[in-house]
Order: sequence, then C-alpha cells, then structure tokens
Amino acid sequence: MKAYQELSKKELLLLKAELEDAYKEAKGRGLKLDMSRGKPGASQLDLVEDMMDTLNSASDMRTEDGIDVRNYGLMDGIPEAKRLMGEMIGVPAENVIVCGNASLSIMYDSISRSVTHGVMGSTPWCKLDKVKFLCPAPGYDRHFAITRHFGIEMITVPMTPQGPDMDMIEKMTAEDASIKGIWCVPKYSNPQGYTYSRETVERFARLKPAARDFRIYWDNAYAVHPLYEDRDDYLPEILGLCEAAGNPDLVYEFCSTSKISFAGAGIAAVAASKANLDEIRKSMTIQTIGYDKVNQLRHVRYFKDINGIREHMRQQAQQVRPKFQAVLGVLERELAGLEIGQWTNPNGGYFISFDALEGCAKAIVARCKEAGVVLTGAGATFPYGVDPRDSNIRIAPSFPTPEEMTMAAELFALCVKLVSVEKLLEKCANAA
Amino acid sequence: MKAYQELSKKELLLLKAELEDAYKEAKGRGLKLDMSRGKPGASQLDLVEDMMDTLNSASDMRTEDGIDVRNYGLMDGIPEAKRLMGEMIGVPAENVIVCGNASLSIMYDSISRSVTHGVMGSTPWCKLDKVKFLCPAPGYDRHFAITRHFGIEMITVPMTPQGPDMDMIEKMTAEDASIKGIWCVPKYSNPQGYTYSRETVERFARLKPAARDFRIYWDNAYAVHPLYEDRDDYLPEILGLCEAAGNPDLVYEFCSTSKISFAGAGIAAVAASKANLDEIRKSMTIQTIGYDKVNQLRHVRYFKDINGIREHMRQQAQQVRPKFQAVLGVLERELAGLEIGQWTNPNGGYFISFDALEGCAKAIVARCKEAGVVLTGAGATFPYGVDPRDSNIRIAPSFPTPEEMTMAAELFALCVKLVSVEKLLEKCANAA
Repeated sequence: MKAYQELSKKELLLLKAELEDAYKEAKGRGLKLDMSRGKPGASQLDLVEDMMDTLNSASDMRTEDGIDVRNYGLMDGIPEAKRLMGEMIGVPAENVIVCGNASLSIMYDSISRSVTHGVMGSTPWCKLDKVKFLCPAPGYDRHFAITRHFGIEMITVPMTPQGPDMDMIEKMTAEDASIKGIWCVPKYSNPQGYTYSRETVERFARLKPAARDFRIYWDNAYAVHPLYEDRDDYLPEILGLCEAAGNPDLVYEFCSTSKISFAGAGIAAVAASKANLDEIRKSMTIQTIGYDKVNQLRHVRYFKDINGIREHMRQQAQQVRPKFQAVLGVLERELAGLEIGQWTNPNGGYFISFDALEGCAKAIVARCKEAGVVLTGAGATFPYGVDPRDSNIRIAPSFPTPEEMTMAAELFALCVKLVSVEKLLEKCANAA
Repeated sequence: MKAYQELSKKELLLLKAELEDAYKEAKGRGLKLDMSRGKPGASQLDLVEDMMDTLNSASDMRTEDGIDVRNYGLMDGIPEAKRLMGEMIGVPAENVIVCGNASLSIMYDSISRSVTHGVMGSTPWCKLDKVKFLCPAPGYDRHFAITRHFGIEMITVPMTPQGPDMDMIEKMTAEDASIKGIWCVPKYSNPQGYTYSRETVERFARLKPAARDFRIYWDNAYAVHPLYEDRDDYLPEILGLCEAAGNPDLVYEFCSTSKISFAGAGIAAVAASKANLDEIRKSMTIQTIGYDKVNQLRHVRYFKDINGIREHMRQQAQQVRPKFQAVLGVLERELAGLEIGQWTNPNGGYFISFDALEGCAKAIVARCKEAGVVLTGAGATFPYGVDPRDSNIRIAPSFPTPEEMTMAAELFALCVKLVSVEKLLEKCANAA
C-alpha cells in the first residue's frame, strides 16, 4: 500500500469516490454497534453467572470474625474483602477500605471532601482562589469530568509509552502549590493501554510537591486485566515505594471489581496510608453507616483469593482477546502503510487508542455514528473534551461480539480513510 | 406509688440506700446489652433470609424493559425499583431515583452538593458567610452530624406530638434567607415516634422561605413501620401537597429498605420534583456510572409490590412489638406515678423517647453503661450533642431479644430512680 500522503490529487479524488461508494453501501447495512464505553460484553457477565449462587438462604452470613453482614456495622469493609482487594493491588489489608459498587464514587468523594474540608488539615479547596490538577492525556474522561465539575483547572501532561512526562510533573508540582493532584491510570492506561515503567512509578513516589495537600490519584482499574496468558505488564506497587521514599501519604489508590465480576454490582476499594485512611474514615462516619457488606462477602466467598481472581481473569481474557484481535486485525489489514493513523496494541486493559491525522478525529467519529457505529466522542480523552490536535480516538472493543467488532472496525477503517482523503484534498486546495 | 418530689429528705435517703444496693447487685449480673442504635435484631434479618434465594444463576437478570442489571447503565435506578420505592412513600415512579444501600449517603450527598454547587443555580453554600438549618429536636443524631460536618449552624426547633413548632418555622424561614433547610422525620419520628399531623404537613407544603435554595429534608425512614396491626399513623404525602401549593421544588424526600430488608444491604431512594431530580442527576452523572442494580432487582423480585412489603412489615412488627412492649411494661410498672420521667408510646418506628428530670439524662446513661447497658449518648438527640435540659434519652429496643430488653429496661428504670433521688437530694442540700 502506498502512503496517502504520497498520492496525487487525482489519485486522491479517485480514491475518495471509491470510498464514498463504500461508505454509502456500509450505511445501507444498518449497523447498530456501540464501542463508546468500556462496557463488558454479555458473555463476560455470564462467566460469573454462578456468583449469584454463592450466597443463599442457607449460607452463613457472618464474616470470618463473626459479624452478621446483613446488619449495620463495619463501616470500612469486612476484613476478608479488605484482604482480597489488597491482594489484587499488592497492598496489606490494613491499608484498604472497601466501599460500594463504584471506585468512581470513591474518587468523586475524595475530591469533594478535599473541596469542602481540605486534606489533613489543609485549607478546603473551595476557599482557595485556584486549584489545579495535572491530567495525563489522552486519559479517562470520567476523571476529567470530576475535576471539571468542581471547577478545578486541568493541565494536560503528555503521555508516553512509559507513562506521563515526569520531567514536567516534577517541575510543575515542585513550583506550583496550587497543583493539588494528578489523575493516573498506571496499568493498561485508559485509553492507550500503556503501563507506567518502574522509573516512572519510582519518580512518582519521590515527588516533592509544593502543596502539602497534593495527592496522586492512582486509579489502578486494570490491575489484573492482561489480555494474553504469556504477558502481563508489571506495575511496581506505589504505596510501598511512597513509604520507602518518605512520602507515605502521597497517594490514594483506587480499584474495583467492576471489570472482574459485574460492571454494575461489583465492589470497590481505596488504599492509602493509615493517616489518609483515618481521615477518610472520619468523613465516612458522617456519610454512611456502612456499605453493602453482603456483596462484599459474596465476592470473597466466590473468588476466595487472588488466585481465584487470576483464574477468572484468564477466562475473561479468552472472551475479550478475540475482540481486540478483531479490531487489530482489521486496522492492520486496512490501514497499515497508509500513514493515516497509528494505534496501540496493549497487553491488557479495555481500550485501543487510535491517533488519526491531525484534525480528523471528530469527523471520523461523526462518520462512524452516521453509519451506526458509536465511538467515544472525539476529544473526550482530553481535559475539557478538547483534543488540541483533534486526533485521538478511543476504541472500546469489549461490548460487541468479535464478529460485530470486525464489522465495526471495518467501518471505522473506512471512515478513517475517507476523512483522511478529504483532509489531504483540503490541504491540496489550500496549497493551490 | 408516691411521687418522688413529695418524699422527705429522710425518705429519699432511705430510698437511695435501697436503690444503691439494687444497683450494686445489678452490676454484679454482668449484663452486656446494646440499646444505643436502631439496629434490627437477628430474628428480623432471618425473616428475609429467603431474599438471598431470589436471584440465582438461573434468574433472568433483565429489568422489565430488558436491561441487563449486571452491566453498567440505568444510572438513576431500574424502573421497577423506582415504582416499588415510590409506592412505599406514595409518589409516582417518575419522581424517584433509586440509589445504593443507604439513604443517609443520599442526604449527605444532597448537602455536600449544595455546599459545592448550590441548589438550582443558587450560590454554593461554601461561598456564603453563614448557612443555617432548622433542627426539630429531639431528632436524629446522624442528621445533625451531617450539617455539623459542613459547618452549618443548627437551630433547635421544639417538637410536639403534632410535629415541630410550625409557627417558629414559618417565621424564621420567611425572615432569614440564610436558613437553607430543615431536617424532618415526619412519620414515627426519631426518637419520639410522633407522626406529623395533616395541618403540620400542609403548613410545610405552604412554606414561603426567604431562601430560594431552602429545601425540606423529609426523611421518611419509617413510612411502612407500624408496630400494631390495628393502627398505623397517617402521614399526608408531601410532594403532592407542595405541588398543589405552588411549591413543587420545596422538598427532597428520602427512604430506604434498611429497616425492611437488610440494614446493611438494602436499597435507598430520593423523591422530588422533576426539576430537583434533574439537578441531582446532573451531579450523579459525574459521581457514578450507576448504583447496584442487581440488588435493586433482588428487592423488587422479592417483595413484588407494596403489598409484599406490607405483609413483610406485618411479620416484622411481630418481632419488634414484644420488645417495645417489654420496655413499656417495665417503665409503666417501675416508674408510673413517680413523676421522675415521661416516655412516648409510639404506634410505630424504632424508638421510645424518655424524658428524665432536668439534669439527669447524662448521669442515667452513665449509670446504665457502668452496669453493662449501652444507651444512645445523652444529648445525641439534639444539635451539637447538647440537650439544654439534659433530659432526653433515646431507647432503641430493636436489637436485643424481648427477654434481654426486659432486663435492660429494668436496669434503666433502676438507674432513672437512683439518679433522680440523687438529683432531688442535691436540691434539698441546695435549699438548705
């Protein structure tokens, strides 16, 4: 295949006509597919179907230390769930609080609490003129939505395959005390699937932010989500590194089983130093009498321990992997060598990140939508929903079947080609 | 029985010696009972044991309109759960959002959201010099804890058997725009078990508060909790009354199944006007991808409709009633005619409220604790934990068995007598 950039105007016009015909035909097929969100597919949920049998009326409903999970109490989680979630991210149970079904809510609460009450005695952020967050991007749109909701100024930090630009992060946090946090998805990052390198994590642990109330918001959402049996990226455990670096309170880590058991009915946890957890518990005492401990017990009785989770995730990967491979296969077949896009091929997680020619992402997403395939909105992976290059598109292959994924990816590739040709023709026109 | 106030000093001294012996003996019995919280007893939880069989791996996990409850989505609750919770409090499903396991968290979130974002476009409360709440008292300590946590000034409103002092509420809300809300437990109030009269509810619905962002926080926690089959207090439905009075947005109503199904693993809801709910949804979109819909479905499949709930509550009352009767029997037998205390005899709910002689509550609670019976801390039923008369004590009979409840109540009555005698002797000494 010849790179599109090398085509003459005439060749581009011919190609455009061809692609337009193909697009017209594709539209006629009446596709209705959704690759917009990291939503588990039905087959994935069916894999844990028998979790619904774990607890029944004959079950002993007491925790390992004899507390009835059906009643009030144990505000910060049952001991065995703390242990299970701790094993998942490699931290001791005592550093874990287990909450409800959504780690997003724990993150929201962390920011909200800092806005109204500050962090460990600092000035509440609502009393400050300016609060800023660093946002490695492309990143997770729901993170950015939280900080935006609270009027926190977001500063984009470029991502690399080793993690965010640490030079920039070290410099900015050291110099600007209004920078209060950074959003991170350190393993199989959303959307690129990158895993932070050892050096990156160590540099995070050694940060010396000017703001005492600066925290790293470490969303370890894909800790146990490799796609392939023979390779799982290694992420150093940050709590221990922070402590070793004399920075024990620097990080809040979040995780959940939303993409392990049931997306809508899993359990979520926050891990941090004792001092951080004590402060969180102080707020929690006001906010709740306790989270759903029946569901916590259900998860522990079902998975038992980290080995149970790993075995389950091995089976889950068998469901998810073909969907990734379907997309990657189509992209390779249709776009390789055309130099109109680059994409990631992650070892795990939930997303493939695609970078189109500058100025093409929005148009590609719009074309796909018009033909029945919904992608995450272009720009969503950047703070304020604005991708300065209008280039990044997040592909979420988990929900459709592999066959549907192939069709969706083919349409996507077609739209990439069509929009790229249009963009190149535009350039010709401007040059003329 | 002769009223204690009419006893001579000599008689009081004799009585005191007798009571001290009895107390010493009681202490020796090594009781270990908890009547501090409205915590369901084990037999109550066992009543819904078979709820754990409602959903299993063979169940259809889709809502009535075909959505898989195990996956993401349906942020504001599944339709059938909205209907069920709506039926419980007498409002249409479209006015209901169903959340997680705790109505307390919804209330906390409502206040927190108002602090950071205001109410329907009003100034965020964190930007105001002063925010005040009206607090009918005695009331629910966890309500007061939320407003205190956010630095909101609390103003005590006296309670009557018809509800809080409406003259005071009308006057204060009309005059003072810094008053942004009022905490209400309108049916079987915590702790007195009073139900607001029709007139009270109608006056609430007609309030003309100076603050546009004033809301009534209507915690209808005991909507379906009568203790006796032949009498259930009637509470007019406030949302409809507010709308009829031209005040559709005046109220947030909260309810849950915490004291219906499992205290730690029920479902909770907020009901309000469409405009209020739309604003809440705007925040929820940032805060969560959705609450635990599996548990919502479990509740609907188990109870089916309001009749299922009522039948279950009839059985539950059979468990709870004997505990109330045990306490009331002991109080009547031991304290009637002594004029050292008054107590409520509610038709439903979870509490009995006891008013001791002024200045005695703390000492009674301390004496009980010393002898192994834990009561709610004296003062807890008032804002800032301070009962200006040091008189009110909340008795929560739900957790112990009826037999334990009798023992606990006997100890309580003994402590009331002993502390009252000491107080009266103190008065003699002061008079001398």
